[in-house]
Amino acid sequence: MGHRLGTPRMNSGRMWGLGFRNQRIHTHLMEMMLCLKQTIEKNLMYLTIRHPQQDLVLEEQRHSQGISKQEALLGNLMYQLVNLLQSGAMGGLELQWSWPSLDVRDDVGGGQWAQSSRQSDTLVHPLSDPVATFVSQHLSNRGTDISDLYHSIFQDYKIYQRDKYHEVKNTLGFINLGLSENKLCLDLMTERLSQSDMNYIEDDLLQYSDWRGQLFLREEVARFLTYYCKVPDRLDPENVVVLNGCSSVFSTLAMVLCDPGDAFLIPTPFYGGFAFSACLYSKVELILVHLDSEVTDANPCPFQLTVDKLEQALFEARLTGKKVKGLILTNPQNPLGDVYSQDSLQEYLEFAKRYNLHVIIDEIYMLSVFDESITFHSVLSMQSLPDPSRTHVIWGTSKDFGISGFRFGVLYTHNKEVASAVSSFGYLHSISGIAQHKLYRLLQDREWIDQVYLPAYRSRLQRAHEYMTKKLEALGIPFLNRGSGLYIWINLKTYLDPCTFEEELLLHRRFLDNKLMLSRGKIYMCKEPGWFRITFAEKPLRLQQAMHRFYQVLSEQKQDLIVKQLEDTQRE
Amino acid sequence: MGHRLGTPRMNSGRMWGLGFRNQRIHTHLMEMMLCLKQTIEKNLMYLTIRHPQQDLVLEEQRHSQGISKQEALLGNLMYQLVNLLQSGAMGGLELQWSWPSLDVRDDVGGGQWAQSSRQSDTLVHPLSDPVATFVSQHLSNRGTDISDLYHSIFQDYKIYQRDKYHEVKNTLGFINLGLSENKLCLDLMTERLSQSDMNYIEDDLLQYSDWRGQLFLREEVARFLTYYCKVPDRLDPENVVVLNGCSSVFSTLAMVLCDPGDAFLIPTPFYGGFAFSACLYSKVELILVHLDSEVTDANPCPFQLTVDKLEQALFEARLTGKKVKGLILTNPQNPLGDVYSQDSLQEYLEFAKRYNLHVIIDEIYMLSVFDESITFHSVLSMQSLPDPSRTHVIWGTSKDFGISGFRFGVLYTHNKEVASAVSSFGYLHSISGIAQHKLYRLLQDREWIDQVYLPAYRSRLQRAHEYMTKKLEALGIPFLNRGSGLYIWINLKTYLDPCTFEEELLLHRRFLDNKLMLSRGKIYMCKEPGWFRITFAEKPLRLQQAMHRFYQVLSEQKQDLIVKQLEDTQRE
Repeated sequence: MGHRLGTPRMNSGRMWGLGFRNQRIHTHLMEMMLCLKQTIEKNLMYLTIRHPQQDLVLEEQRHSQGISKQEALLGNLMYQLVNLLQSGAMGGLELQWSWPSLDVRDDVGGGQWAQSSRQSDTLVHPLSDPVATFVSQHLSNRGTDISDLYHSIFQDYKIYQRDKYHEVKNTLGFINLGLSENKLCLDLMTERLSQSDMNYIEDDLLQYSDWRGQLFLREEVARFLTYYCKVPDRLDPENVVVLNGCSSVFSTLAMVLCDPGDAFLIPTPFYGGFAFSACLYSKVELILVHLDSEVTDANPCPFQLTVDKLEQALFEARLTGKKVKGLILTNPQNPLGDVYSQDSLQEYLEFAKRYNLHVIIDEIYMLSVFDESITFHSVLSMQSLPDPSRTHVIWGTSKDFGISGFRFGVLYTHNKEVASAVSSFGYLHSISGIAQHKLYRLLQDREWIDQVYLPAYRSRLQRAHEYMTKKLEALGIPFLNRGSGLYIWINLKTYLDPCTFEEELLLHRRFLDNKLMLSRGKIYMCKEPGWFRITFAEKPLRLQQAMHRFYQVLSEQKQDLIVKQLEDTQRE
Repeated sequence: MGHRLGTPRMNSGRMWGLGFRNQRIHTHLMEMMLCLKQTIEKNLMYLTIRHPQQDLVLEEQRHSQGISKQEALLGNLMYQLVNLLQSGAMGGLELQWSWPSLDVRDDVGGGQWAQSSRQSDTLVHPLSDPVATFVSQHLSNRGTDISDLYHSIFQDYKIYQRDKYHEVKNTLGFINLGLSENKLCLDLMTERLSQSDMNYIEDDLLQYSDWRGQLFLREEVARFLTYYCKVPDRLDPENVVVLNGCSSVFSTLAMVLCDPGDAFLIPTPFYGGFAFSACLYSKVELILVHLDSEVTDANPCPFQLTVDKLEQALFEARLTGKKVKGLILTNPQNPLGDVYSQDSLQEYLEFAKRYNLHVIIDEIYMLSVFDESITFHSVLSMQSLPDPSRTHVIWGTSKDFGISGFRFGVLYTHNKEVASAVSSFGYLHSISGIAQHKLYRLLQDREWIDQVYLPAYRSRLQRAHEYMTKKLEALGIPFLNRGSGLYIWINLKTYLDPCTFEEELLLHRRFLDNKLMLSRGKIYMCKEPGWFRITFAEKPLRLQQAMHRFYQVLSEQKQDLIVKQLEDTQRE
């Protein structure tokens, strides 16, 4: 309703009809201005009376910052308006506008990826004084923002890259159980990739090719998905787009399905890469559908996604004027490890259809289900998909085959228009021809996959999972015991006092100080502090070493908590 | 002056100072509205009296389209304004704005990449009736625009991909002398890439790596460029960023150096990929610096780039309020084949320094200089680069090594801040680890490059160039006889009557009808119709076949021209 409330007088589509145009302009503009004036006055008043109980200096500062921002924004809109009309008259519309910069530096408080109040140069420069702290001498505003964001997100990862654990060469290096990387079958993969059929070279692999991906690879992907996703009808290679990684597929889908500021629903906790990808290019907002760990009548399982929650989030978003274009699902789920039942899946898809939402479903862990009692259902396997033209599947080899370094992501969509639009981005997201050929050979070798690779992979996953769950049980750490994925979602809130995201971060840093990387729940936008994702798809000896460090950190942490609690008691 | 003229009343940075705020709002808004009203009226009048002599129905259509556009734009600005102020009052600025869609469908007329008047869904939908032809059921507005643009640009390329010439299998297929692809040394390259050192696999190549590119590759690139660019001091691997193609490097540079709507100067004719890349993500405007073919006192060589021309374009752009952030150069030039002299290069760089402009210099053809009398000077070779922190070099192996299918592009910049910001985009533009290793081995093998590859490559280039220039001379076709690159810039204007871009397009289609692809000058934003770029780096037999088709098309075209001229004479 938010949008509608704001626009009752804005029916400008008919504002200047073919007759009486000039006469009506003045009246309409005056009406608009009256509406504007009232809004501005209300707004200024609101700024003035906001939080009067708080620190007055700080409040005054915020207040005048708020006003400056609005001045700049309003002034710029006016400026653009005049400019636009003038250039319209000159035959070329030269609207210069930029998306507001993104700022996640305050991610501890919010939960949503906040949009920064700082405006781009084009906005601020002509109208207000530049704010020194924000200005880079060489980078644009968006360049600075993205760079800051990247370096804050990947800070630990970069340290890890420079100081990786090695059994012989670097026993004091970082062990990374924070990244979801499958290191269980590198031996098998190396052996297979070293076979002679892999090293084929032909002219076409060395030259420019179809930006959607080479036809031979798309054909093989279609066959592969038809088989492993148990698709009733053969998939069409023309609906396959192959890009350099699943994040590229997601990012380009967001580009072609949304305009800047449009939104996707996404249940939390979720894979943080979606948020980073959305910031880099598409500027799509993610509307969080918060799931709870606590089991109640309405929430029969921890972090259970229900249509009620989706509907509520959608309605709330629409009330605040958001334009929700789709729903993002990951199945098997990351970081929870849940596999959606066929019924649940059907319900989510029908919900999406009811509200004309696209569904982007990331099935990147589809072959990483190691518990035999669990059946994975791909949306592609459904006999009648509720809304085929709005259902888009992402898959890749990074997880199931443990070759994230290949940078290979697949889009399958029944919607040829979407496939075609995404392929436009192949120009900037394509894969080496020689890598495409290797992937083609790999996916084609069904005998090796079924007889050698998958049995070994799943049994190793199972064993590593068992090893880790036993360790967690021994330590009395609650966790979600699931049968898919490369990681376990564990609850360390008893190690936090108070149980806040700040303490979660401190514990995370303590792991880092002990050369162990985990992923903290905040990264997944989990609404409850204390959750961590720990990857178990690591070689046995390394896993053992990691769990040793894990145990040590938690012991230290517990010691400190006891001391702290004693001190608190004494103080009382 | 355009912008300044539009803004004398827009000094809103101080508009609502701390005192007398509410009282002043009304007055200022009324002032602005008066200004707006005058502009709108002037504009409507202009639309009404425009080209009254032309077809009235068409004019009426244009007229009402123009009005609808402006209605939607103005209405939307108002709507955004109210929405913005309201959300500002709610504590979070939720500006929903999208960059105006790009439209190059009318590229025949303009020269500059025009911005479409059609607005994004968020803009148009709530305020005006949807225009059926513009609306896609599933794609966003930007998705539709980019898809349309891509398919219009790559239409011929896609036909070629499906029907390529082959000496045995498809003698009636397309021969592509339109693409700048080096097919002269595929034999040598295949041989080298088939050697055993290339097929090395280790765990690190299969896993996530540094998003800037693997360190071993960046180190090798730094050594390689130090050697081949004759760099006085060793280049630093920390200043190297490796992405999947030079277009990705350019696109990400544009992202981090510019905000949307900022501009780069670029001399025409230029490689069209810059324009397409700029449209996909960065929304950077290209300001064309038109060069002339005619030799005069002020223009000593055809298409001579001078500082005067750069300065004039910069001043004109600034007068119209453009925020020019940099200059794009390609050296050796594409499509002209020119190699900039050291003095010229120095002048361009000093010009850029004088105006605080970044220089993006694409040296992708640096090893493709086949005339021994010509020396290529990389900007990296300069003893004292005028503005090192604003000079950014692009290179890759697509042209010099004829392996465009590898998707490999390099950024070298002395500016660590820029390198670091660009590397943020490695997340969506990285290369397969195994391809990185092959590239590393290739660049490392200096003996093979110097003793085997480069001598063979350059001599083959030389021979192919000689073959083609002789054919052109025999046909009496003027062309630029240069000693670098894979192509020749030829002038077919005597085959056009009248000499227009429409006729250029028709001739281009006639080549296509005869299964020959060339690139027409319009794609390079050449201001004079009639120029084409023809690639000669093709295998001898194929080149021969292509030139046979070329001759046939021009003979037919000449026949038609004679018939047409006869008819014209008879009519007179």
